[in-house]
Amino acid sequence: MLPVPAAEGGSSDSLGDAAVLGVLTVSDRASRGEYVDEGGPAILGFFSEAIASPWVAHSMVVPDEREQVEQALITLADRLGCSLIVTTGGTGPAPRDITPEATLAVADRELSGFGERMRALSLAFVPTAILSRQVGATRGNCLMLNLPGRPKAIRETLDEIFAAVPYCIDLIDGPYIETHAEVVDAFRPAARIRS
Amino acid sequence: MLPVPAAEGGSSDSLGDAAVLGVLTVSDRASRGEYVDEGGPAILGFFSEAIASPWVAHSMVVPDEREQVEQALITLADRLGCSLIVTTGGTGPAPRDITPEATLAVADRELSGFGERMRALSLAFVPTAILSRQVGATRGNCLMLNLPGRPKAIRETLDEIFAAVPYCIDLIDGPYIETHAEVVDAFRPAARIRS
Amino acid sequence: MLPVPAAEGGSSDSLGDAAVLGVLTVSDRASRGEYVDEGGPAILGFFSEAIASPWVAHSMVVPDEREQVEQALITLADRLGCSLIVTTGGTGPAPRDITPEATLAVADRELSGFGERMRALSLAFVPTAILSRQVGATRGNCLMLNLPGRPKAIRETLDEIFAAVPYCIDLIDGPYIETHAEVVDAFRPAARIRS
Repeated sequence: MLPVPAAEGGSSDSLGDAAVLGVLTVSDRASRGEYVDEGGPAILGFFSEAIASPWVAHSMVVPDEREQVEQALITLADRLGCSLIVTTGGTGPAPRDITPEATLAVADRELSGFGERMRALSLAFVPTAILSRQVGATRGNCLMLNLPGRPKAIRETLDEIFAAVPYCIDLIDGPYIETHAEVVDAFRPAARIRS
Repeated sequence: MLPVPAAEGGSSDSLGDAAVLGVLTVSDRASRGEYVDEGGPAILGFFSEAIASPWVAHSMVVPDEREQVEQALITLADRLGCSLIVTTGGTGPAPRDITPEATLAVADRELSGFGERMRALSLAFVPTAILSRQVGATRGNCLMLNLPGRPKAIRETLDEIFAAVPYCIDLIDGPYIETHAEVVDAFRPAARIRS
Repeated sequence: MLPVPAAEGGSSDSLGDAAVLGVLTVSDRASRGEYVDEGGPAILGFFSEAIASPWVAHSMVVPDEREQVEQALITLADRLGCSLIVTTGGTGPAPRDITPEATLAVADRELSGFGERMRALSLAFVPTAILSRQVGATRGNCLMLNLPGRPKAIRETLDEIFAAVPYCIDLIDGPYIETHAEVVDAFRPAARIRS
């Protein structure tokens, strides 16, 4: 279960001030190698396209076991210093789906708007989007977001909600993240924009 | 308070594999007989029009007393084996309105998307829809949904959200429910559709 | 921290039956006098324009300290008899933002629809609206609503959601509040409208 740096990006010459990001795939089958994880790579692909400032990402794959999901989130946030963790999988109503419970169990506070908006966005594509229990929440200086499992749904969701992520990370005292405006037009109040 | 089978439907010759459904009217006045329950029949009417596979429904009427609502939900889910319970009434902000509290008290997990979407749908008809505290939640293999009291609001809500109900019940290991597509176009991922 | 009556309005000759309203500004800087509170006056301005029946308002300013916010809400609701308290500030994800926690800590029940709808309304103006953790909740006969800090956002939010406020206050046994329909077209079921 030891994470390895999986990817890095951004336009800086040095990664000394790079934002540290986490990608956590929650899937029984992917964790046993019976299934090629597509959710994690979709999230990394989005980071590559969207984030302009330097970043490095750690990826982990765990089964749908609450204890293991909680430990992975704690490792990514506390030990590896992630400012953002995006999970994929395990948000439905099935008994094995425990990603939201694990996320809230290690969180300081929930940001209800993320879950509400992600469901509303997915509802434009599929009526069963209301079954998702996905949440957004913070643990100290780290924002955790639960995404669905399907790569297409991941992209549809991140394309919009990521506009609020850099300012959220500013507010929890994380690094200043910049985006490519043609992919994600991140919003900050005028007084908070660094020139 | 003993429930009696109130209705059945669907196109099968045998009801041996029928989905068991519950209808719970929560109303002080209806439980005293001072008022003819219109919410329960509206839900049964919807079942008759919308569900194509065999089903049988149990109906109960209880006053706005939390203990009685909880016991009715437990009876319907655990003793009578309901895969779906739809409640009507008791979701507002008035002190006697306790249906959501009772539902969550007997639930394993909340499905926040149901409450959010039901309020958003009703908001198209009446601005006070935001006052509703209605929830969706599961208890084991049973999905519980709180609906408003007015028959018109019940129908406006079920017409849309029921599209996600059969797949939700699949995911919690309940029976395979089919709908009449011209009333409710239930969605399942292609791989989950039985031919 | 002692509140003083800040404003009154409405068309009655006597204020004996006036609705008592509370305005609570939560801001470290405003409480130290380093910053002129604009949120509180924006709320009072809205009351003046929107409410046709007699009212009197108490205003308080407290720092972003959970204990002080809780005590202010209790004072306004229990000692001063407010039927409605509107807060401004302290709803974001920053560590000092604790208004929603304080509100829920003194509340009997949350009305989730207010938070959902206020975020959805603000999202039309700014993508970071999903970061707001604002809630609506009741404490006995008092409705508490968390509003954002910016006067423009306060107005955009109140203009719509206030349509549901008078009926909500009816349902929790508060005074009958009437609005100027050209500002806010408050909704009540026909049977609840007093002529």
